[in-house]
Amino acid sequence: MSQRFYAKYIIETPFDVQKAAQDMAGEQSTAPSSYIKAETAALQREFGAHVESVDVIEEVKTPTLPIPKDSNGPFVRAEVRLSWPIENIGSLPMLYTTLLGNQTGMRTLSGIRLQELQLPQSFMENCPRPAFGIRGTRRLSGVHDRPLIGTIIKPNIGLTPSQTASAAQALIDGGVDFIKDDELMSNPPYSPVQERVKHVMDVINKAADRDGKKVMYAFNITDDVDAMLRHHDVIAKAGGTCVMVNLNSIGLAGLATLRRHSVLPIHGHRAGWAMLTRCPMLGMDFQPYQLMQRLAGVDHLHVSGLGGKFWEEKSNILLSAHDCLTPMKLPSSDYEDDRAMPVFSGGSTVLEAEPTFSGMKTVDLIYTSGSGIFGHPQGLTSGCTSLRQAWEAAVAGVP
Amino acid sequence: MSQRFYAKYIIETPFDVQKAAQDMAGEQSTAPSSYIKAETAALQREFGAHVESVDVIEEVKTPTLPIPKDSNGPFVRAEVRLSWPIENIGSLPMLYTTLLGNQTGMRTLSGIRLQELQLPQSFMENCPRPAFGIRGTRRLSGVHDRPLIGTIIKPNIGLTPSQTASAAQALIDGGVDFIKDDELMSNPPYSPVQERVKHVMDVINKAADRDGKKVMYAFNITDDVDAMLRHHDVIAKAGGTCVMVNLNSIGLAGLATLRRHSVLPIHGHRAGWAMLTRCPMLGMDFQPYQLMQRLAGVDHLHVSGLGGKFWEEKSNILLSAHDCLTPMKLPSSDYEDDRAMPVFSGGSTVLEAEPTFSGMKTVDLIYTSGSGIFGHPQGLTSGCTSLRQAWEAAVAGVP
Repeated sequence: MSQRFYAKYIIETPFDVQKAAQDMAGEQSTAPSSYIKAETAALQREFGAHVESVDVIEEVKTPTLPIPKDSNGPFVRAEVRLSWPIENIGSLPMLYTTLLGNQTGMRTLSGIRLQELQLPQSFMENCPRPAFGIRGTRRLSGVHDRPLIGTIIKPNIGLTPSQTASAAQALIDGGVDFIKDDELMSNPPYSPVQERVKHVMDVINKAADRDGKKVMYAFNITDDVDAMLRHHDVIAKAGGTCVMVNLNSIGLAGLATLRRHSVLPIHGHRAGWAMLTRCPMLGMDFQPYQLMQRLAGVDHLHVSGLGGKFWEEKSNILLSAHDCLTPMKLPSSDYEDDRAMPVFSGGSTVLEAEPTFSGMKTVDLIYTSGSGIFGHPQGLTSGCTSLRQAWEAAVAGVP
Repeated sequence: MSQRFYAKYIIETPFDVQKAAQDMAGEQSTAPSSYIKAETAALQREFGAHVESVDVIEEVKTPTLPIPKDSNGPFVRAEVRLSWPIENIGSLPMLYTTLLGNQTGMRTLSGIRLQELQLPQSFMENCPRPAFGIRGTRRLSGVHDRPLIGTIIKPNIGLTPSQTASAAQALIDGGVDFIKDDELMSNPPYSPVQERVKHVMDVINKAADRDGKKVMYAFNITDDVDAMLRHHDVIAKAGGTCVMVNLNSIGLAGLATLRRHSVLPIHGHRAGWAMLTRCPMLGMDFQPYQLMQRLAGVDHLHVSGLGGKFWEEKSNILLSAHDCLTPMKLPSSDYEDDRAMPVFSGGSTVLEAEPTFSGMKTVDLIYTSGSGIFGHPQGLTSGCTSLRQAWEAAVAGVP
């Protein structure tokens, strides 16, 4: 008997919910219609998705998503749990197709959203998974018992490699643990990765020799796969300790390939995540997203910040960060740590240190503030200092 | 003066629309806030995104997407055109981050959707682009002056390599031009690509020797990048003439990398596309999507079928197919053809041949019917014959 994987969806339909759930199961496993002759009962038994449960939640009068005009409603919302034999899929990209493929466009559904994913150990053990996680990140950065405090180079784009290095120098002098490129800065003609790495690592390596502490710099190498691997090698050779990618731009296949090649922690930016999650009856929740990204090998994962230039509720941001910190609990793992370090970023300033700590009850996180440092009225160093002090106060319980 | 790229969005906001558009431009270029000191006027001039135009469309009372509670409305919808210097980006994945990144989650917006993308030649010329397109596909399949008529192996999953080959044999005998794996079938333990290719190509090669016509089989190789390249080589070596990938599962970086390696046409399945497009005020239209996928190298691109098990309006499906057929018009191209062949699939049967032809006014397309062949009451051969005849009648104008 095969092990199975489980997914929970919320769906909305003007038709019979049991039938809609069965259609989802058919579409995403053996066949979309029962009149396929070669779909024998034995084949269906072995490879078919099962409807594990259907629980009606509520009825609404108007459909959330456009649906053909022959459907008048009412529209029933229900929680649907499906399961599949793990043998149906051979890789993470195929898991993604199975969970979020054609069924998202079925005309019988006016809403479909993946909420939860549960995978058997046998599958997870064969995925790349984080090579460093929290433990490896702390080891490389030399920061223990507190968050990694850092920033994003600002302005987002437009700085030359030597201007970026000057900013990095000021930040190191100001006492940050972590610096990252903006997600919009990767390998433009005016700041090729190779040049930026040379200038920035020169500053970082010198400071490391002087201070005994190497600041972690996440170089954004989002690109075609060949270029990402090439740039990774440049960074590793220069003594860098982190690479960064925009997850939704490179895809699970790109990430998994980078991970199998990489000797550095992978910092995962989720730019564009809102597009996958912001419509409440479409896309997916963060739990399945972060699980797939971690299985593909991400070590740090952005969860937004409580200060919020983004749409998300604070409670949801904290929940996302807790998801990243939930271990996979795989036995006999030869990996250092399979948790991803949540990255609080995007509108975070000194004001959010206390609520972030009180919501997380842990310091296992990366806390970055772009505007809070580069926009600080007294300059970069004051920005860095105030951020560090805010976190010291938060952890010490000083208001 | 740098060349620029242009994007049109529809946005929805309870705030001043001009300000919202400016914020989008800032967030996605030099800086999210004007108080970043290093963001000089010169830097902004060189790298900043411009708001080209803002045209208010209408006001609505309730927000389409969730937005923080301090925004009471009314919510103004407007068409916003932005432009960026092409020097800001170095690759397709970075173009994606710029077009559909953090701005999709801005708390000031209750709707944001990318509708149109326009790129300068200088950028497009350096992208992989289709290596075969329509002309190359016709050359390899030997099918001219009519659509490639084909099918998807059904049941979707569960068949062994030899069962798949038997189905292929029956389809070839029935006269199809094109066969593809289902998007859910890639490299599962019970049907490894290597084995499936061996069995299927044995049948196809023998028939080609006998009939002088090699049926094009799109083997689904969706997987991690290394595995995709490896499986591509197996297929090419066995005499196969097409590889297939699930675009949303492998990402633009995965596709571009496959394209640079591939010696075969790439058949692009868009499973999960609904998730990116189905909410009218989120995600994107098909025009920018197909352009980015074609630039990354896709030769065939799914557009759904008029018979419709999916949600989309027929007029929209036809528009998508026309998008695929719009040439990039690059000068001095050494590529065979930069149009992607639109694939009508998903609920297509004999009944949709006539409306498809009358909507397209061209036969430059792939027409696949899964249920229409595997579900045909008189069996596979009758299914194939009826589909071919339906298209002959449609093109001849016979009702």
